[in-house]
Amino acid sequence: MNRIAIVGVGLIGGSIGLALRDRAKFTGEILGVSSDRTISEAVRLGAIDRGVTLEEAAATADVLYLAQPISRIIWTLEHLSGIIRPGCLVTDAGSTKVRIMGAARDLPLFLGGHPMAGKESRGVSSADPHLFEGKTYVFTPRTGEGPEPSCVEFVRWMALCGAVPVFLSAEEHDRIVAFTSHLPQLCSTALASTVGSQVIEEKHLTVSGSGLRDATRLALSSWEIWRDIIATNCENIDHALSVYIDKLTEMRENLQTQRTGGEFDFAANVAGKVRR
Amino acid sequence: MNRIAIVGVGLIGGSIGLALRDRAKFTGEILGVSSDRTISEAVRLGAIDRGVTLEEAAATADVLYLAQPISRIIWTLEHLSGIIRPGCLVTDAGSTKVRIMGAARDLPLFLGGHPMAGKESRGVSSADPHLFEGKTYVFTPRTGEGPEPSCVEFVRWMALCGAVPVFLSAEEHDRIVAFTSHLPQLCSTALASTVGSQVIEEKHLTVSGSGLRDATRLALSSWEIWRDIIATNCENIDHALSVYIDKLTEMRENLQTQRTGGEFDFAANVAGKVRR
Repeated sequence: MNRIAIVGVGLIGGSIGLALRDRAKFTGEILGVSSDRTISEAVRLGAIDRGVTLEEAAATADVLYLAQPISRIIWTLEHLSGIIRPGCLVTDAGSTKVRIMGAARDLPLFLGGHPMAGKESRGVSSADPHLFEGKTYVFTPRTGEGPEPSCVEFVRWMALCGAVPVFLSAEEHDRIVAFTSHLPQLCSTALASTVGSQVIEEKHLTVSGSGLRDATRLALSSWEIWRDIIATNCENIDHALSVYIDKLTEMRENLQTQRTGGEFDFAANVAGKVRR
Repeated sequence: MNRIAIVGVGLIGGSIGLALRDRAKFTGEILGVSSDRTISEAVRLGAIDRGVTLEEAAATADVLYLAQPISRIIWTLEHLSGIIRPGCLVTDAGSTKVRIMGAARDLPLFLGGHPMAGKESRGVSSADPHLFEGKTYVFTPRTGEGPEPSCVEFVRWMALCGAVPVFLSAEEHDRIVAFTSHLPQLCSTALASTVGSQVIEEKHLTVSGSGLRDATRLALSSWEIWRDIIATNCENIDHALSVYIDKLTEMRENLQTQRTGGEFDFAANVAGKVRR
């Protein structure tokens, strides 16, 4: 990989540029495709070397890294077939994978990806070379394909950026994250909404501890991002919600019994494993 | 207040002792009622001056501070009537208030309390003089009573320990915390339990971000404490759970619509207020 082009230079795209340069010591060229304003900022921060059009990126890069919102990634993938250089690996950082893999089906070389790293703040100004440090980076290779050399090399660069590669099928990925990422988001949003609708006097919101703060942090997330995630993983999310609602209903029916005690013990054990 | 006796010298009781001495510069005597082992540790840490029996504490202290689990607080209150010195203010740190206020109804002077401060670790070895810094401390005076001078003085000491006093009726307190504290706990336990039952392969738990960690932190809490809280606030908790389940059901039915977008916006606003 001598030249990578990052399409969408926001928090993730900008952090990939910084991590490649600062942490992985990548000496090739880093191009960026974004608005003029973002390009200036990204160049200033050292996240990219220069801005180019999508056409130029597709015609000259070894790796095209799509770090846009999911619906934009799908749009870009559908417009690449005529302009992509044969031999260019296209990869992405979208939070759901099945729909994106589908949109990429005609590209000669594609590797789905999902770096499980983030921040509350957005944009290239929040980019951080250490964003991926120790964080899971899921790769979803096309099924039935052996490992392409360009994919192997790209995964190695992401590991050099600090990420921990995990390989899953796109279907497995979407089924798992419905529980480990999308369900926590909806739990938190529903909780904040419930508390807000029931605790009418604003001063009573201070009658709470750090638990409410932790449990409502995800509720700060914007619908702009989550609309795409929900739209592209709705069946798995619907299933996860139904299992969660059933669990809550069961706990409600057995609140004062040892069965809820068993649930606390099991949950504490799972929460411990999440922290390992 | 010249002499305070702390009954149950754990995280909260020990921290009250340390905060009174180190932060509030209380120069009176601090007694402790606990097991021999805990008393030695608490004296060593400077949280109390010496250990006494409950009878000695009740006969000699100006303030009796009950920092035990809820069921033990209720037990202690029911055993105080014969031994308490007239003029001694009894107060407590239990997480629910209506049942405790009921058990204290025969005491001449009682002020319900709930310091909304905590830590994941327990016991006097985790005690911290700054535990109450900036944290809400709810007081639930008996209805219809004017402020007793001893209550006013005690509240002032708690403010000198860094706490922010808030006054509510016991009923209001229990209704509010069902949403702001008890519901978040059950959400988190149900979430960790759901994830643990559905994400079978342990390595797949790493396919998650900081969101799952935050959302499952409360699930680490022990049933030992929550059994008492649920038992003494079950009607309010049952109601909070039913409102939450309805909200989730409504979101599930409208997942891909602007209605869920509105829910995200409202929830983000509430989550922002929780952080003020």
